[in-house]
Amino acid sequence: MSGIVVQNIARPTIDLIDGLAACGVATVHEAQGRTGLLGAAMRPIYPGARIAGSAVTISAPPGDNWMVHVAIEQLKAGDILVLAPTSPCEDGYFGDLLATSAMARGCRGLVIEAGVRDVRDLTQMGFPVWSKSVFAQGTVKATLGSVNVPIVCAGALVNPGDVIVADDDGVCVVARDRAAEVLEKARAREANEEDKRRRLAAGEPGLDIYDMRGKLESLGLKYV
Amino acid sequence: MSGIVVQNIARPTIDLIDGLAACGVATVHEAQGRTGLLGAAMRPIYPGARIAGSAVTISAPPGDNWMVHVAIEQLKAGDILVLAPTSPCEDGYFGDLLATSAMARGCRGLVIEAGVRDVRDLTQMGFPVWSKSVFAQGTVKATLGSVNVPIVCAGALVNPGDVIVADDDGVCVVARDRAAEVLEKARAREANEEDKRRRLAAGEPGLDIYDMRGKLESLGLKYV
Amino acid sequence: MSGIVVQNIARPTIDLIDGLAACGVATVHEAQGRTGLLGAAMRPIYPGARIAGSAVTISAPPGDNWMVHVAIEQLKAGDILVLAPTSPCEDGYFGDLLATSAMARGCRGLVIEAGVRDVRDLTQMGFPVWSKSVFAQGTVKATLGSVNVPIVCAGALVNPGDVIVADDDGVCVVARDRAAEVLEKARAREANEEDKRRRLAAGEPGLDIYDMRGKLESLGLKYV
Amino acid sequence: MSGIVVQNIARPTIDLIDGLAACGVATVHEAQGRTGLLGAAMRPIYPGARIAGSAVTISAPPGDNWMVHVAIEQLKAGDILVLAPTSPCEDGYFGDLLATSAMARGCRGLVIEAGVRDVRDLTQMGFPVWSKSVFAQGTVKATLGSVNVPIVCAGALVNPGDVIVADDDGVCVVARDRAAEVLEKARAREANEEDKRRRLAAGEPGLDIYDMRGKLESLGLKYV
Amino acid sequence: MSGIVVQNIARPTIDLIDGLAACGVATVHEAQGRTGLLGAAMRPIYPGARIAGSAVTISAPPGDNWMVHVAIEQLKAGDILVLAPTSPCEDGYFGDLLATSAMARGCRGLVIEAGVRDVRDLTQMGFPVWSKSVFAQGTVKATLGSVNVPIVCAGALVNPGDVIVADDDGVCVVARDRAAEVLEKARAREANEEDKRRRLAAGEPGLDIYDMRGKLESLGLKYV
Amino acid sequence: MSGIVVQNIARPTIDLIDGLAACGVATVHEAQGRTGLLGAAMRPIYPGARIAGSAVTISAPPGDNWMVHVAIEQLKAGDILVLAPTSPCEDGYFGDLLATSAMARGCRGLVIEAGVRDVRDLTQMGFPVWSKSVFAQGTVKATLGSVNVPIVCAGALVNPGDVIVADDDGVCVVARDRAAEVLEKARAREANEEDKRRRLAAGEPGLDIYDMRGKLESLGLKYV
Repeated sequence: MSGIVVQNIARPTIDLIDGLAACGVATVHEAQGRTGLLGAAMRPIYPGARIAGSAVTISAPPGDNWMVHVAIEQLKAGDILVLAPTSPCEDGYFGDLLATSAMARGCRGLVIEAGVRDVRDLTQMGFPVWSKSVFAQGTVKATLGSVNVPIVCAGALVNPGDVIVADDDGVCVVARDRAAEVLEKARAREANEEDKRRRLAAGEPGLDIYDMRGKLESLGLKYV
Repeated sequence: MSGIVVQNIARPTIDLIDGLAACGVATVHEAQGRTGLLGAAMRPIYPGARIAGSAVTISAPPGDNWMVHVAIEQLKAGDILVLAPTSPCEDGYFGDLLATSAMARGCRGLVIEAGVRDVRDLTQMGFPVWSKSVFAQGTVKATLGSVNVPIVCAGALVNPGDVIVADDDGVCVVARDRAAEVLEKARAREANEEDKRRRLAAGEPGLDIYDMRGKLESLGLKYV
Repeated sequence: MSGIVVQNIARPTIDLIDGLAACGVATVHEAQGRTGLLGAAMRPIYPGARIAGSAVTISAPPGDNWMVHVAIEQLKAGDILVLAPTSPCEDGYFGDLLATSAMARGCRGLVIEAGVRDVRDLTQMGFPVWSKSVFAQGTVKATLGSVNVPIVCAGALVNPGDVIVADDDGVCVVARDRAAEVLEKARAREANEEDKRRRLAAGEPGLDIYDMRGKLESLGLKYV
Repeated sequence: MSGIVVQNIARPTIDLIDGLAACGVATVHEAQGRTGLLGAAMRPIYPGARIAGSAVTISAPPGDNWMVHVAIEQLKAGDILVLAPTSPCEDGYFGDLLATSAMARGCRGLVIEAGVRDVRDLTQMGFPVWSKSVFAQGTVKATLGSVNVPIVCAGALVNPGDVIVADDDGVCVVARDRAAEVLEKARAREANEEDKRRRLAAGEPGLDIYDMRGKLESLGLKYV
Repeated sequence: MSGIVVQNIARPTIDLIDGLAACGVATVHEAQGRTGLLGAAMRPIYPGARIAGSAVTISAPPGDNWMVHVAIEQLKAGDILVLAPTSPCEDGYFGDLLATSAMARGCRGLVIEAGVRDVRDLTQMGFPVWSKSVFAQGTVKATLGSVNVPIVCAGALVNPGDVIVADDDGVCVVARDRAAEVLEKARAREANEEDKRRRLAAGEPGLDIYDMRGKLESLGLKYV
Repeated sequence: MSGIVVQNIARPTIDLIDGLAACGVATVHEAQGRTGLLGAAMRPIYPGARIAGSAVTISAPPGDNWMVHVAIEQLKAGDILVLAPTSPCEDGYFGDLLATSAMARGCRGLVIEAGVRDVRDLTQMGFPVWSKSVFAQGTVKATLGSVNVPIVCAGALVNPGDVIVADDDGVCVVARDRAAEVLEKARAREANEEDKRRRLAAGEPGLDIYDMRGKLESLGLKYV
């Protein structure tokens, strides 16, 4: 089951990826029917980054970052590394040297359900990471895992080539074959929100804009 | 027990509220006898905000933000929304559209024992939030809760119209009828600290300033 | 076992301390054989600080910060306070007044497996703290603890006079009698990394730089 | 705010208390509109106990069980001790000696948002405890708290004299002045469930018994 | 994405299921290459049960158990219900009435990444449950989810018709099309362990039985 | 720092060990000045065991149980294995085969700040374990650790040959050279408690037995 590196994976187009990045996590998540979010424990190491990329997945043993080295060689421009350990772990699998190597291959960031270190350097390099922890704990290189196999990362199924969208709200995965449809819906959602934002800013009650009063009353809401 | 919106609640004066905001959470908490703190899991979405406001409370089902829409209509200038889910939840009940609506009514911020999203937008808008999590997970509008009823939020009892003080140290609630007394004590505490700060900065030992040596010795402290 | 203040403790030289600070936590941790890290729950109250110092240790009861006052008198320039409660606690043992006093004695920071408050002030003062929580909850001064005895802080054994290194990656302790050796190894490690960083930035695969392909193949890694 | 012992508190009748005990936590919680549950972290030290009692409340500092001794003197037959620390704590406030003393006064059990110890002895004595942790960590007797004041225990407001119901499902509080009404509703609920249980056991679909098919269809549920 | 009930799912044979049950979780997990375990937070409500079954999956909103009623109608003898909420939740989705209904249809147990209640009744009925929490908190029936779609439960991907194995060690999922192969490997593993158990019981060192001394020495293990 | 097996360690006498076992964790912890407890997350896999033993310590990488095999060879009758991973881990390092081997050498139990599996078998074998988790997740045998070196396990420093006492209240460590003194104090404590238990059972208030009324009054406790 482990010890496999899948080399040729299909990727979405950069246009699709960049379009989803521009929409951001909350909008994309809503646009695909409120699915695809990774757990809330996945936090960015610095605020303000908003990226998307094509997933290069890593299944790695706890405390062993060997497969990260293997995965980096599989990176293409526009990719994001996504790592799930085979059992819960918060060790620092990734630091500034690996980021240097990944950036040289066009990698846009890392999503890891474990730890990361050298976060000051990564911040200065502008290499964004969403992780479960920041922890300097070193790892070994002793046991095989796999690259570009399906993984469950922070509770979400990620297939290689899926689109990963990440910003200050967290991380969302979009299945590759749904990316175009989700992008369209996300943009429609954004357009629709613009009008609402203007009306809400003018002080109009959301209860009216969304026509909620009747339903609330019918369920028995009482104003006292 | 749910399905109630209390419309006319008593509020403290803005002067009291602003006075407590200036003192900050730690001082106010001490001034009222070390009570009223919400749990340490309540963290600000960005550093540096220090606010106070009159509580508009929301009791909402898990994963259902309908009552937030209802509560916003009850807001007056100087209010803070305080939401407690009826069971533990980290979903993102609140984002930039709701913040736009709340700010249009003079709301100063949100305290929520659950999740929030669109935090990059909220930061840019200067709308401070203290929450248990940042999570893009969307919510439904299907089940009633209540507005302006007593709630327990992050372990603290909050009645509508109580003063909420929030800063980088967390969140504290002051009962409305104690607000004036607590403000007075908080200011006295601040005045008292000024002299101590000067002496401590000059290198004078706290053991002397606070006259602790005798009591420590009587309890048996040994210097070896 | 408690109620003891050890006054004369051996300290490493400032040169050793400053040398280790410059290397940072991840490098020092690796240089001493991947040992000495405090748990990942220990986080800085603001990003960017990188310090080292000689440990003045505090064993304190839960919710009682009396021994901090006692410990401050024992501080010398270049020291760091390290506090472990005798049972798990997240109360705010330390705020801006204590920081003022500690800074007046040359203290470089605080490492506390509990809570801290006044973090906005501490940030403005440039007094770095690594803590388990930020929590305004006040403490009492009623029960003795000890100063400068061995403690276990966040899972790591800390003896008074050990070197504490802390930065955005967390906190690491170096036994005093190993400090010189560890510094030497840390510097060698840094020198060695420089060449690797350059080659990785140029796009050379880590699999080649670290000569990993043969071993991966022998373990059965399959490219498909 | 602390340092108070309220001696004369109103209690519900033993009949009400025993009636609620017989219904159990889940039924009582439903009967009062899905409110009153303490958090799920409150677990029994042994399975099988199902009790109710009138609350004698304790607000105690972290790591200090002095007020337990004070509270025990206030106990009457049919009471339950309910302790909330003033900040999070898992120390063992209570063991077999205190249980001996409490049982001698007719106490039916302990609910504590902290730790308990001597659980083997407590099990043999048949003294049930619901706690956040089992932890042998000892406490001091140095700082005052209060007895029979309103407390928030595990997220629920408990007033002295409220009914506490506890079993393997957790702990629920019923306000004293609602106890009779809640008992009536709980019994009605039980009677109503009996018929449903018989039909469900016979294999009749709940979708029919509860007449759900129409509403599910109208919301768009699709069978494929 | 939600609102779907898949009615005709393929199931493994009862022989396969029962064979895997007899092997238990740890053996099955090892036999399929150390994959398929649900997270360690999934604990049985009572010790001693060891079951397997074919998964009927439920994706449900937080705090809403409507889909459990829908799923029960889809049960066949030998099935196990597997529920994952769409966001983290610990509410009590399931109690004795639902268990009565499920048992009437041949259901062998429940695996739920949320809460369960009426555990005393469930224990007496012999209906085993593995859950994240025990919590009496009631749920609503207001929002659709889906039945028999792929879900991620406690970090593991579960497809309808996969085999679920559960015992005191936790829960493991075996993909339906791998069930026969995994059963064969699990039985081989058990046979192989029998001889080792006998030799170990006789005091023979595992270092010899597993022939580890040479490799340990070559890696540098030193006996001092 | 790792890769070391210390073969000749000093052990306390079996009389000392058995004496401490009879006293139990809470009493021993109190007798040595409320020190030595491992964290409350360490729970027994079944209730009722009360043991003590001489520690054979294991420092092991996350997810790698190789050193357990090495350590078992170092066991003597009356020993307890104590394992701390070098970074947080909940994998199942230990199961029924290792227990068979350990029991054959006189081992009394296992204390592990990680996971254990085969707990049904271990329960039937009567081999007690205190662990952070029960988790079937398998481990590898790829990287060295050390045996019989000082470790920090669940927050407590454990040296090889220290006495470990474990029961339903948790786990406590007693330094080998303090074992005789602690046993004496623990027995004195037990003797002293007997009289108190009798008086408390007779209904005498603890406030009188412990002579607390005066001190409570002097601190300002008010009965209202």
